[in-house]
Amino acid sequence: MALHRNIYWADGCASGALSRADASRSTRKTRCAHVNTDQTRREQDFLGERAIPADALWGVHTSRALENFPISGTSIARHRELVAALGSVKLAAARANAELGLLDERRLGAIESACGEVIKGLLDDQFVVDVVQGGAGTSTNMNANEVIANRALQVLGLQPGDHAEIHPNDHVNASQSTNDVYPTAVKIALLHGLDNLAGAVRTLSEAFAAKGEEFRAVPKVGRTQLQDAVPMTVGQEFSAWAATLAEEQARILDSRGLLSEINLGATAIGTGITADPRYASVVLRHLREITGMPLQTAGDLVEATADTGVFVQLSGVLKRTAVKVSKICNDLRLLSSGPQAGLGELRLPPRQAGSSIMPGKVNPVVPEVVNQVAFWVVGNDVTITMAAEAGQLQLNAFEPIMCHGLLQSMDWMARAFDTLARLCVRDIEVNAAHLEQVSAHSVGVVTALLPHLGYAEASAIAKAALSGEGDVRSLVLRTGTLDEARLDELLDPERLAGVKATAAVGEEAMD
Amino acid sequence: MALHRNIYWADGCASGALSRADASRSTRKTRCAHVNTDQTRREQDFLGERAIPADALWGVHTSRALENFPISGTSIARHRELVAALGSVKLAAARANAELGLLDERRLGAIESACGEVIKGLLDDQFVVDVVQGGAGTSTNMNANEVIANRALQVLGLQPGDHAEIHPNDHVNASQSTNDVYPTAVKIALLHGLDNLAGAVRTLSEAFAAKGEEFRAVPKVGRTQLQDAVPMTVGQEFSAWAATLAEEQARILDSRGLLSEINLGATAIGTGITADPRYASVVLRHLREITGMPLQTAGDLVEATADTGVFVQLSGVLKRTAVKVSKICNDLRLLSSGPQAGLGELRLPPRQAGSSIMPGKVNPVVPEVVNQVAFWVVGNDVTITMAAEAGQLQLNAFEPIMCHGLLQSMDWMARAFDTLARLCVRDIEVNAAHLEQVSAHSVGVVTALLPHLGYAEASAIAKAALSGEGDVRSLVLRTGTLDEARLDELLDPERLAGVKATAAVGEEAMD
Amino acid sequence: MALHRNIYWADGCASGALSRADASRSTRKTRCAHVNTDQTRREQDFLGERAIPADALWGVHTSRALENFPISGTSIARHRELVAALGSVKLAAARANAELGLLDERRLGAIESACGEVIKGLLDDQFVVDVVQGGAGTSTNMNANEVIANRALQVLGLQPGDHAEIHPNDHVNASQSTNDVYPTAVKIALLHGLDNLAGAVRTLSEAFAAKGEEFRAVPKVGRTQLQDAVPMTVGQEFSAWAATLAEEQARILDSRGLLSEINLGATAIGTGITADPRYASVVLRHLREITGMPLQTAGDLVEATADTGVFVQLSGVLKRTAVKVSKICNDLRLLSSGPQAGLGELRLPPRQAGSSIMPGKVNPVVPEVVNQVAFWVVGNDVTITMAAEAGQLQLNAFEPIMCHGLLQSMDWMARAFDTLARLCVRDIEVNAAHLEQVSAHSVGVVTALLPHLGYAEASAIAKAALSGEGDVRSLVLRTGTLDEARLDELLDPERLAGVKATAAVGEEAMD
Amino acid sequence: MALHRNIYWADGCASGALSRADASRSTRKTRCAHVNTDQTRREQDFLGERAIPADALWGVHTSRALENFPISGTSIARHRELVAALGSVKLAAARANAELGLLDERRLGAIESACGEVIKGLLDDQFVVDVVQGGAGTSTNMNANEVIANRALQVLGLQPGDHAEIHPNDHVNASQSTNDVYPTAVKIALLHGLDNLAGAVRTLSEAFAAKGEEFRAVPKVGRTQLQDAVPMTVGQEFSAWAATLAEEQARILDSRGLLSEINLGATAIGTGITADPRYASVVLRHLREITGMPLQTAGDLVEATADTGVFVQLSGVLKRTAVKVSKICNDLRLLSSGPQAGLGELRLPPRQAGSSIMPGKVNPVVPEVVNQVAFWVVGNDVTITMAAEAGQLQLNAFEPIMCHGLLQSMDWMARAFDTLARLCVRDIEVNAAHLEQVSAHSVGVVTALLPHLGYAEASAIAKAALSGEGDVRSLVLRTGTLDEARLDELLDPERLAGVKATAAVGEEAMD
Repeated sequence: MALHRNIYWADGCASGALSRADASRSTRKTRCAHVNTDQTRREQDFLGERAIPADALWGVHTSRALENFPISGTSIARHRELVAALGSVKLAAARANAELGLLDERRLGAIESACGEVIKGLLDDQFVVDVVQGGAGTSTNMNANEVIANRALQVLGLQPGDHAEIHPNDHVNASQSTNDVYPTAVKIALLHGLDNLAGAVRTLSEAFAAKGEEFRAVPKVGRTQLQDAVPMTVGQEFSAWAATLAEEQARILDSRGLLSEINLGATAIGTGITADPRYASVVLRHLREITGMPLQTAGDLVEATADTGVFVQLSGVLKRTAVKVSKICNDLRLLSSGPQAGLGELRLPPRQAGSSIMPGKVNPVVPEVVNQVAFWVVGNDVTITMAAEAGQLQLNAFEPIMCHGLLQSMDWMARAFDTLARLCVRDIEVNAAHLEQVSAHSVGVVTALLPHLGYAEASAIAKAALSGEGDVRSLVLRTGTLDEARLDELLDPERLAGVKATAAVGEEAMD
Repeated sequence: MALHRNIYWADGCASGALSRADASRSTRKTRCAHVNTDQTRREQDFLGERAIPADALWGVHTSRALENFPISGTSIARHRELVAALGSVKLAAARANAELGLLDERRLGAIESACGEVIKGLLDDQFVVDVVQGGAGTSTNMNANEVIANRALQVLGLQPGDHAEIHPNDHVNASQSTNDVYPTAVKIALLHGLDNLAGAVRTLSEAFAAKGEEFRAVPKVGRTQLQDAVPMTVGQEFSAWAATLAEEQARILDSRGLLSEINLGATAIGTGITADPRYASVVLRHLREITGMPLQTAGDLVEATADTGVFVQLSGVLKRTAVKVSKICNDLRLLSSGPQAGLGELRLPPRQAGSSIMPGKVNPVVPEVVNQVAFWVVGNDVTITMAAEAGQLQLNAFEPIMCHGLLQSMDWMARAFDTLARLCVRDIEVNAAHLEQVSAHSVGVVTALLPHLGYAEASAIAKAALSGEGDVRSLVLRTGTLDEARLDELLDPERLAGVKATAAVGEEAMD
Repeated sequence: MALHRNIYWADGCASGALSRADASRSTRKTRCAHVNTDQTRREQDFLGERAIPADALWGVHTSRALENFPISGTSIARHRELVAALGSVKLAAARANAELGLLDERRLGAIESACGEVIKGLLDDQFVVDVVQGGAGTSTNMNANEVIANRALQVLGLQPGDHAEIHPNDHVNASQSTNDVYPTAVKIALLHGLDNLAGAVRTLSEAFAAKGEEFRAVPKVGRTQLQDAVPMTVGQEFSAWAATLAEEQARILDSRGLLSEINLGATAIGTGITADPRYASVVLRHLREITGMPLQTAGDLVEATADTGVFVQLSGVLKRTAVKVSKICNDLRLLSSGPQAGLGELRLPPRQAGSSIMPGKVNPVVPEVVNQVAFWVVGNDVTITMAAEAGQLQLNAFEPIMCHGLLQSMDWMARAFDTLARLCVRDIEVNAAHLEQVSAHSVGVVTALLPHLGYAEASAIAKAALSGEGDVRSLVLRTGTLDEARLDELLDPERLAGVKATAAVGEEAMD
Repeated sequence: MALHRNIYWADGCASGALSRADASRSTRKTRCAHVNTDQTRREQDFLGERAIPADALWGVHTSRALENFPISGTSIARHRELVAALGSVKLAAARANAELGLLDERRLGAIESACGEVIKGLLDDQFVVDVVQGGAGTSTNMNANEVIANRALQVLGLQPGDHAEIHPNDHVNASQSTNDVYPTAVKIALLHGLDNLAGAVRTLSEAFAAKGEEFRAVPKVGRTQLQDAVPMTVGQEFSAWAATLAEEQARILDSRGLLSEINLGATAIGTGITADPRYASVVLRHLREITGMPLQTAGDLVEATADTGVFVQLSGVLKRTAVKVSKICNDLRLLSSGPQAGLGELRLPPRQAGSSIMPGKVNPVVPEVVNQVAFWVVGNDVTITMAAEAGQLQLNAFEPIMCHGLLQSMDWMARAFDTLARLCVRDIEVNAAHLEQVSAHSVGVVTALLPHLGYAEASAIAKAALSGEGDVRSLVLRTGTLDEARLDELLDPERLAGVKATAAVGEEAMD
């Protein structure tokens, strides 16, 4: 049995990331070989010279990064919002530099054009560095700088690599450092992701709310600690899920505030070295215009550059949402257990044959996949927490893994919740006949009589009823404490479920 | 070697928790034996009869709980705020019940008196159930109900156990369920804990701010990824820590909002069964008066009773604070490394001999203990997350472990941060001479010349300087790009650190 | 509402830890005040002089530690095994030093006597430093050194503090460093804890095995993904739990190997500085004799002193056990859900009234508390992981939190599993009539016919049966594929459950 | 700014996963549209009929799974070892079925041929279901069943979809269930991954060992708690890293034992329903031959089918390795900090320009990426732990996320460790001159004199030396306790580092 993967990765194919797709290995090999033709150009940095594929818009820094970080095989292009955000930040910076007299109109025009293409996704295949990378985001920033510089050169009718004309560092990266560009772009990407996720949560909440309305009159036995408790309706259960998710939507959107605080102008460590003192406010204005987001410059740029608390905070919010939805999926799976030997309260829509061996079996596959996404998000939270804790002195070198974890968590959750709403919740049916029958015989109704019987007597009646000595109603009548009319009133199903407004109990409660 | 612990725990000593202290085992055994005398009273519930120590204010439910949960050996009395909060909730409930005609004045007076003692901590030794307990808090609630009922009986001149007069369930717990009382009390306890923690964070932030002021003119080399970056001051570093903690204080206090939402009136599952419809608003009014807290009743009581999202959210906030302070402690330990072979920038005050073998060695023991508290808080967050995810249907049975984890995290952090401020930060000294010397020779200043030299030339100069070919200043002068006067201006230490307002760079930057 | 805790902690009571018990605050205050009398002696170290309570056996180092680490309020005496292990290590060291001519007979005798008392637990109340402490265990080691030195002085008729005669460092700690003593003592404590835990796991496994035998003939419907699958017996389910726990017991005992590797003789960083080259082997021999454990000296003492992998490994093993038992408790709670509206397969023994409001309700409180212990253990694993990752260079400063977390996890699990076996599993009853009735009508039996009908036809029959068109048997007969006799054979309950040896199916399976 | 991703995912393109690559969105859209041509065939299962792309080898089940699980965009083909393992298991099953008379020679030959192609990776592009999936692996198993059945049909000259001839369930899946096939295939894939990872750990260990040899005579100051401790050599430090990783390699290989236990023959829940009683042993024999692995059938198949402890165990082992390597990377980054203001002991090879703004800066990017991989592995461990805990009754539905997490962790670590060895460790240089100079002046050597001076006097000397009152040697001479010759002997650098065998100290130690 030959497993070829490592051969592929070990061959040092500089353009490897271009082809790190889910396609078959043979395809990848071909592509890789294709790029490794003699059609290369030479580029150099202070560490030396390297051959770059002639048609690549990225350059020497990216080339080294491809070699240094052969980890996940997933390039940053997977995070569309991140690439777009890099384009936005670079565009804002170019405009600010021009406004401050640091960039001429010709270069500005070319860079604007290139940034526009980055934002639209036309150059995604050039964003090839691995999502898991060292260097605190420098490789991502330089990948963007190189692509934009080279694309801008093409716009001007020049060749990629002609950096005397447009230089990745001196022109595209002017007044910037990875340490302010990268976290700013990440935050913009996260803000996009937040909106997307909040939308999916709303969709899911609304799906539950609609079902809550549909099932509002279906009685059931509420359960605490998996033991029968007191009466409620299926509608109350679904409405509570809707409410708890509406709350999540609000919490997710709350996170926008902290994420909107950026540190452009901080440059390397927050002291603003190399940047014109006016730069921070000018670039902020441009970036707000470009993104339409109410961004703000942080008050203490040294703090803002070192701190990654906002990522930990956001991760905590995502984890909370994940945990809540996981709990709901657990409930859905439990309530739909059966069809014969389970609780059998709900019927989830069948989505695929559930077994390769058990004929006719159907499983709750959609809630199950959502559970797993939730577990993953909790794991990502631990990763992000450790990465944040590991920051040192003026910078946290581990922002890339936080960025990847957060964008992945938001993306997976948004897809999972949308799937849950669309392929499961909207078509849930309730087994009303079964529920009504179980509710009618529930001993839990005795709780409603507590103010009238007292705990000790009510307990004795419950015990007797469960032992088969009679139903609660007849056992209570036998005690003579309450008459039939009063009992009918107290045990009215809608009153039990708290749906009907009830009279004051005080006037007649036991002494 | 005989390890006797399990003998102790296995003997079923009903009053075990009273004596589960850190005292030696022999002491505990004696006490245990003392309680197990013939001086008992008999109590019963629907599971049967049991002997209760005659002088115990707790009763049959608590007795069973002591047997069922011999886990941590730490009783809920460890959480003073929780016991006080239970007293407050029971007091509010009694007043509401009286107002609604459900409790007569005589019983009210006695219960009020007992609750007052609980709030003040006079009955803490009666809160004996283990902090780790099954039953979703029922044992904690019943421990409170029993203690208050029996103490109220004593107030009336009656004997503990005379529950025909005052019954733990029928009178003390009237209109309530564990499922609304317990989370409400936990939230009040957490609100207290939050205030305490926020105070400790503020203390720590202020300690850093004072040092930031003290060290504001001391230059140093900022570091990113542990590599020398660009100039800054020690004051900027400390001020950034102050700022980041001020931000934490704000986030911690933000959590008050969600915690202030309670579910009294929900009773068992949120449907309000057994409670007068007016009860929720009446008890809220009383509880607000008693606690002085701006509590609110949740909008959907079914949701509020099942959901534990607020605990996950709070835990996430605590974790973020823990992670930030841990990062700062890592920095403090790193910057004070030495005394000879380390960075040696800071001198932490010596607090104890650092070694049993290395003479004169002093270690950063206070930051070290804070790191460990942070790791613990992160672990508690995972525990709380799993407990929240495991909730089922109308209730989360695992609230006790969330409660313990949160109160413990807040308590340990408050102590640790207070200790850090008091025994470490306030007495930190800076090794100014060393810092000035290192700063004066730093190659990192070349970054300031980037707009004038361009990235490639600046890199060449940096490389040359590090190779010992001369210092940055002389190497730049050799290039002829900048003259001495301009160089002096650009390399002015205060300007480098971003402390001094600098002129616009645009007008003269390289093309 | 006055919460006095912080007043207590802030008063700097040097002997605070003595009284940090679960007792009420007022009690603690009194005790604290009691110790703070004028009856003190003066002790000094290289940081200065301090007053020590006259009757304390601990000294100046411990006194500083009490001030520096006011975190958890739980002293190391809580971990009986750890204190005993410290006594064992110190005893072995004293004997080795004497054998090597480094300690005279008189001092040896006195130190041996003191160590004996430490091992037996007679001096536990002198082990007062907090379980959460900075300093990599130095305070724990020095607490032991001071107590043993002072107790040895008393044995000789001298006064505590007369360190010219017996010195905590020079005599008790001779040839040692915290960095070899502390991890060695921790490992010995953990080995004790392992045995205790393995015993509890075995007890639990045996309890399940006995029930597996008792319920071996009770049929039930097996479930995958909470959906009805195919027939099995209750006995198979319980036996599988017994088997999975027997496997855990083996894994736990496997951990003994790694834990038995110690680093005595390494002293400060593994280079053995101050120790006679023969010391490592001599002290090992004595320690093996004292503990009866097959301890070994690590091969690379520099590695062994810096590495904490063994704690991470052990924590992973504990976590796995916790997770398995938590899963079983989830199953127990699910299978006993009801009594009317749940699965109702099992009846757990009632252990306490389950609700303060719902009369007669009984909850699965014992499995619930075990679940929470499991969640805690998982949290502790994250704490331990972070602490291990944070080690730097030649030592991990965070061993104390790993030690506390591991001992706590093992202790809580042992108690919880013992409780689960004793108060729950042994008295579980099965609802056989219900199970037989459900089994008899299960459509899942159609799977047994798959080799004869093929997947498509079997699926059609399952669908028809669930739609109420008839039971599986009659529907199959209608197809004519199998006759009654063959069908009886194939659907024999014992055969279905795999209990009865079945004939080969090959000879007649469909083509 | 338009972000088109969700449009893509929402379009329900049944063959989406084929094109879920890192390529740009526009490309993906085209491909997707291409597949959705009229060239389809119709397939059906008991839920209804669907159109399948004519050239797809997968069928109706896979088609539904593509719709149900649009989560990660990464197909199971990413895990080459898993696909190969599925081929192996199916091949073994086919041979076992043939041997038992359940499969004829013609079908066997075709299926063998198809399985061979799966093993070799020729059909990877047909393994399209998402790595994150509900259904406990059923979709992965059915994807394999369908691909193998259809490819086998092609081998026979028939058309895909002609399942009357070769049926995915009846023939390819005969005698099997997802519940035994899937975990078995996962374990085989993990065993492959383990070998790969163990190789990478060995490579890394050897790289450190070679450096340990190279630097064995270079002195340095050992540090505990980041404070200067006692002398050692750089070689000892590197050798300790080599030793700790050799230990990891052993632990990783130890895991092979548990992973080798499989449950083929268990079918649905461990009772072996549908399988010939001889099947388990026959299929084991074939699978051992095919894989060359010493696999074993589990003793209790009900237990083995429900339990996922082996995955938790393996994850714990991986986490431990990750944590250890992360700690080493932290050390490498710390020891190479500088170049001017850091510890500057080591020089890591420069791999890329470290900053977009700071000229000449080089960062430790390779250790940094390894740290992040370690954090990710710790996060995955939490995910796997939660997934394991969430298993219910006879099966754990969440095996797919455990499988993905484990394979990803092993894959990332293997790549990261290989990169660390190749691009960093092998080219590390030591700053010997600096180290020698620091070592020569270290006060830490005073520890070596402890047996001769006693702790108090040695402390006084250390304090004096650090205060600049002289070096240790001259201060000791001044006390007259030791003469020059003896002092020279005691302070001999090799002796200090424990490299040179030292004479017994007992004969002359202080009284």
